[in-house]
Amino acid sequence: MNSSLRFLAACRREPVDVTPVWIMRQAGRYLPQYRVIRSRVSFMELCKTPELAAEVTCQPLDALGVDAAILFSDILIALEAMGAPVEFTGEGPRLGAPLRTRADAERLRAPDPWETMPFTLETVRILRRELKGKAPLIGFAGAPFTLASYLVEGGSSRDFRAIKDMMYLDPALLHALMTKIAKTAAALLNAEIEAGAQAVQLFDTWAGTLSPRDYREFALEHTREVVSELNRAGVPVILYVNGCAGILELMAESGADVIGLDWRVEIDAASARLGGRFAVQGNLDPAALFLPPEKIRERVDDVLARAAGAPGHVFNLGHGIHPDTPVEHAVAMVDAVHTRPRDGKV
Amino acid sequence: MNSSLRFLAACRREPVDVTPVWIMRQAGRYLPQYRVIRSRVSFMELCKTPELAAEVTCQPLDALGVDAAILFSDILIALEAMGAPVEFTGEGPRLGAPLRTRADAERLRAPDPWETMPFTLETVRILRRELKGKAPLIGFAGAPFTLASYLVEGGSSRDFRAIKDMMYLDPALLHALMTKIAKTAAALLNAEIEAGAQAVQLFDTWAGTLSPRDYREFALEHTREVVSELNRAGVPVILYVNGCAGILELMAESGADVIGLDWRVEIDAASARLGGRFAVQGNLDPAALFLPPEKIRERVDDVLARAAGAPGHVFNLGHGIHPDTPVEHAVAMVDAVHTRPRDGKV
Repeated sequence: MNSSLRFLAACRREPVDVTPVWIMRQAGRYLPQYRVIRSRVSFMELCKTPELAAEVTCQPLDALGVDAAILFSDILIALEAMGAPVEFTGEGPRLGAPLRTRADAERLRAPDPWETMPFTLETVRILRRELKGKAPLIGFAGAPFTLASYLVEGGSSRDFRAIKDMMYLDPALLHALMTKIAKTAAALLNAEIEAGAQAVQLFDTWAGTLSPRDYREFALEHTREVVSELNRAGVPVILYVNGCAGILELMAESGADVIGLDWRVEIDAASARLGGRFAVQGNLDPAALFLPPEKIRERVDDVLARAAGAPGHVFNLGHGIHPDTPVEHAVAMVDAVHTRPRDGKV
Repeated sequence: MNSSLRFLAACRREPVDVTPVWIMRQAGRYLPQYRVIRSRVSFMELCKTPELAAEVTCQPLDALGVDAAILFSDILIALEAMGAPVEFTGEGPRLGAPLRTRADAERLRAPDPWETMPFTLETVRILRRELKGKAPLIGFAGAPFTLASYLVEGGSSRDFRAIKDMMYLDPALLHALMTKIAKTAAALLNAEIEAGAQAVQLFDTWAGTLSPRDYREFALEHTREVVSELNRAGVPVILYVNGCAGILELMAESGADVIGLDWRVEIDAASARLGGRFAVQGNLDPAALFLPPEKIRERVDDVLARAAGAPGHVFNLGHGIHPDTPVEHAVAMVDAVHTRPRDGKV
């Protein structure tokens, strides 16, 4: 069974020979060949240069032997396309003046991705051509709450005070903003699918800061809008929330096919709480890749054993790989996943 | 039913007239009368001056009408007593050189709290005298994982890489360190109980960064050491972990009587996952106190309604109160809790 079949089969809860594996931020600074390219171009230039973006997308396939490629881009590109300038600094992204008023929100557009993000879609086209079915291509977008939080906070945040203030004091404004973001994200994902993406992931990196009640009203509702807009025949949708342990039952209502888990929940308990109806993705602590390789294998085995009862499992870290992870440790993880048979001969 | 009876009864899963309420960091910067005192002395001086520490401990009783007083002190005082210098800066605490070696760990002592933290115990004694049974007094200590993380990281941390490196690469060293911290925390809590504390809370603020597997091996084991050492006849033990949603079933094995919840889990689901055997404490999002007072009341009602089935409930925020919370909003929350009857006439 090749990588392409294996990943999509697991997402569809069909039998696989071994568990497919990919890594969040697998095309990143921990790879020397990535750093070579980044020494010549900025992060933003890299995202916007299709040949280079396609090249770094493919690097982990050879270096690690992962079972899927994920488009090299950034969730904040869509905010730039909406009209919010984005700058990447050493301390994380900066979004210009924080969005706080209805006028600020109205200035943003829900753009046509083919006009505003052509480089991203061209990257997808190049990749589908070059990958030739060797590995499936995952497209992605930021989920509405996470994208809104960057706009309203003006960047990363520790306590999300600004977006929670808006949520509590002017919920109609936040809903209007998130509806616009949801339209943008859905249009982007549909364009990625049209250009060749074979699965898509919605990243809701910051939604784990919400109480379940607020998650339902503010994040889930708009995530559902995105998912319901997708032309998804045969294209699995993965929903990832960092800090999902308190909201799994709500994520199950999102319309997604695969639930992406962070490392702070046991994968067997999570699958059970999802009613055993979903493929799950995850969920090794990225910090565990600093263990010696033989211990990494033991940790991988533990995750695989716990996921054995889930109707589908895509192995991944519970969050993005640390930039200073030794490459050979990531290789040891991928090898360990591929060593253990899953559903018998298929 | 007065505050004193109400709080201890809820911890013991006995009937109460209305749900008791206190607030994590209730003696803090959001209170003008606290800021008056802090304008004259540093945070550390305040912790170490029994008359002043006792005075700020009592401030929220009159200002808010909460049902319990919590000793004014800091979890890092115990680290200083162990031999690690602590400094409070605008950016949070600094612990001098990060602890990284066995020699570093061996230099620390498990001190006699009566010798090294007499000011804390004197504060407890003054408070018990002054409170005269008007409100119960809660003592506290940091849990071993959280205190160890301050030592190993040298302060606060974003990703806890240093302590996870130690956990994975030299677990014996981390266990030895945490055993010493557990002894210190247990001795401190026992001294607080001897001096008059009527309940104690263990704060494991950072344990929510661990996978359930690591929580069990590294945090829970040493939390159990602390709890098992306590002279706790009639003194309820509360265990609070920020980020508890993935590890509730493990917290139930800690030996604690009351499980403190952060705001990212529904209190009814949490109580069910705890087997319905524990009193629960929590769990309003601190950010919800920026809502208008009538909406705060509605949020409080939601938490109270969800907690109605738990065998005991102490209302609290899911984390410490924000320093810029309007006092009248905190008052509205306390009033709302006290408006709704719980177990009928008792």
